[in-house]
Amino acid sequence: MFTIHPTARLRPSPFYDAVVAEGMTAASIYNRMIMPTSFGDPEAEYWRIINGVSQWDVGCERQVQIKGPDAGRLAQILSPRDLSKCKVGQGKYVPLCNHQGTIINDPILLKLADDLYWFSIADSDIWVWARAIAAERGLDVEVSEPDVSPMAIQGPKGEDVVASVFGDWVREVRYFWFRETEIEGIPVAVQRSGWSKQGGFEIYLRDGSKGTKLWNIFKEAGKPFGIGPGAPATAERTESGLVSVGGDTDAETSPFDVRLEKYVDLDVADDVVGIAALREIKRNGPRRHQLGMILEGDVPAPLGFAWEEIRAGGRKIGDMTNCVWSRRMNANIGYALVSVEAAPGDSVEVMRDTGGTAAKLVELPFL
Amino acid sequence: MFTIHPTARLRPSPFYDAVVAEGMTAASIYNRMIMPTSFGDPEAEYWRIINGVSQWDVGCERQVQIKGPDAGRLAQILSPRDLSKCKVGQGKYVPLCNHQGTIINDPILLKLADDLYWFSIADSDIWVWARAIAAERGLDVEVSEPDVSPMAIQGPKGEDVVASVFGDWVREVRYFWFRETEIEGIPVAVQRSGWSKQGGFEIYLRDGSKGTKLWNIFKEAGKPFGIGPGAPATAERTESGLVSVGGDTDAETSPFDVRLEKYVDLDVADDVVGIAALREIKRNGPRRHQLGMILEGDVPAPLGFAWEEIRAGGRKIGDMTNCVWSRRMNANIGYALVSVEAAPGDSVEVMRDTGGTAAKLVELPFL
Repeated sequence: MFTIHPTARLRPSPFYDAVVAEGMTAASIYNRMIMPTSFGDPEAEYWRIINGVSQWDVGCERQVQIKGPDAGRLAQILSPRDLSKCKVGQGKYVPLCNHQGTIINDPILLKLADDLYWFSIADSDIWVWARAIAAERGLDVEVSEPDVSPMAIQGPKGEDVVASVFGDWVREVRYFWFRETEIEGIPVAVQRSGWSKQGGFEIYLRDGSKGTKLWNIFKEAGKPFGIGPGAPATAERTESGLVSVGGDTDAETSPFDVRLEKYVDLDVADDVVGIAALREIKRNGPRRHQLGMILEGDVPAPLGFAWEEIRAGGRKIGDMTNCVWSRRMNANIGYALVSVEAAPGDSVEVMRDTGGTAAKLVELPFL
Repeated sequence: MFTIHPTARLRPSPFYDAVVAEGMTAASIYNRMIMPTSFGDPEAEYWRIINGVSQWDVGCERQVQIKGPDAGRLAQILSPRDLSKCKVGQGKYVPLCNHQGTIINDPILLKLADDLYWFSIADSDIWVWARAIAAERGLDVEVSEPDVSPMAIQGPKGEDVVASVFGDWVREVRYFWFRETEIEGIPVAVQRSGWSKQGGFEIYLRDGSKGTKLWNIFKEAGKPFGIGPGAPATAERTESGLVSVGGDTDAETSPFDVRLEKYVDLDVADDVVGIAALREIKRNGPRRHQLGMILEGDVPAPLGFAWEEIRAGGRKIGDMTNCVWSRRMNANIGYALVSVEAAPGDSVEVMRDTGGTAAKLVELPFL
């Protein structure tokens, strides 16, 4: 392995000092920010998400803020999902697509006011894209990156921790809904959200100078619940069937290919970016689909930096886009982005560094 | 420090196996690819660029390919620089700007044919931006990411190495011009280029399966010249006054702020993205400019992941965007993005972790 070279082209999050103090040992780069991925004890970190509560620096989930008289119009133009019933205080998962119907990001859209929206984005430069479309269409709207950085409290005991900080009202917050509030003078938005299926909240810090203070408030409040540092967990998200845009997708992947069809509304207005292409893809039927895969072998063998070829009958049928050891399933599991002719139950072969490895296709999620 | 966590969201370059074999110890992430930054001996790596020849995996400089009947039109629409005299086989440095006149990337544009261009980009998602503008304007053009990955041969002996591989014709190639050719059956483009001021070439590999083979051809050919592995060097590029877009720039930086005015032609057509904003910025005069800075102290103290505040008379006047130890100047040197009221010769103070550090503003480049 190698270390990461400091440069101002990559940015720390407001929680950087806190996670360094927690003993961060590994990280990834996401939206040109440092996203911690481990604190040196992967096993403890995994079970904390599954059984307890885990605290994550996900400040790299940046916000693309859309503000102004045409904010609602631009939000809808960028979203192939009907936002007409989205209320202030509500969030919605949106697979953003380019004009060709390729998924380029999958943010949570937060409606803060009729003229103010945030896309809380995955890893790609949605600012340049959103600004270009707003300008080309002559919309009266400002697209910016506000001083907003999420921290996640994830796991079955997450709600208790967040309630102990803000009060029991958080227990009534519905999935992806949020409330703007403050804690010890720190402005935040509190949303039921997070990149796991174990429950929890994201606390959107709205003052980047207060990262360590906010981190420590939750570290302290979480002690009775056994909180500890963690990170978006490849194993948990894979077991749970969550998609990583940019990891599980390529330059030709539509939402239909990766089980996101339910978040696409083909009857939105014709001026929505990519909607014509998505209708066409739907009409013709997608070429590929995403399935789970259980690999033979009892030694953890995670995917590296590149997809691995999947074959059936000696012929390439697609790629393994993700592979990780599941401690609950005692197996290497992964995602297959394969021809629609391949189906759950099929036996396939993955062309790994160590040689061909037998695997079985299954439905997602695993758990 | 921390290690980087493997994930298919980040990609290896075709030279990845080769640089691992060379003993890569540190890397950065650039266009979601792994860019080696050190092989464990920074001093040797530095002097190799200054006095000898260095081999770099810069496969992360991806190509945004523009192809089709409207390719030339789109290339000009995206470029606030007059391309009307650009010939096939010629390259041009282009500061790409958004509609607000903010610099979002600074690629080399390569004209391969009247209907085929590459932007060899720095670190941001120009594909999504270029595709959006092409689609919004209804242009007949395809924007894609071809299988093209540059490797750089940099340093005063670089030309000799490249000539020993391809022949003496490379000595006649003018700056940023290129020729398409092949070596041992590997298709490449050979361009006089590279992110240093020490001279050299970039070899654009056009078959990603041949990375190790191409690497080893140059490793072997370079032996008589003392070639060794290296990387774009923060020290050399700082001494030489090269700009790192995304490192030295922020969401409000125009080309005028960072000494790139000579690459902007304000009289290009009105339909060029950002040109109206750039004319306005020029008319009003930029607020900031980029100067060099020599810091007091004789202990190397590089910048980390964040800009550092610069003060004059106790008041913030801007930011230090870059700082590195110069072995040739025996000093920490950096870039100041400061108010236009600050001038070379001014004494300033940099607010470092270790306390206020005295510094003097100077003209760029340093050397």
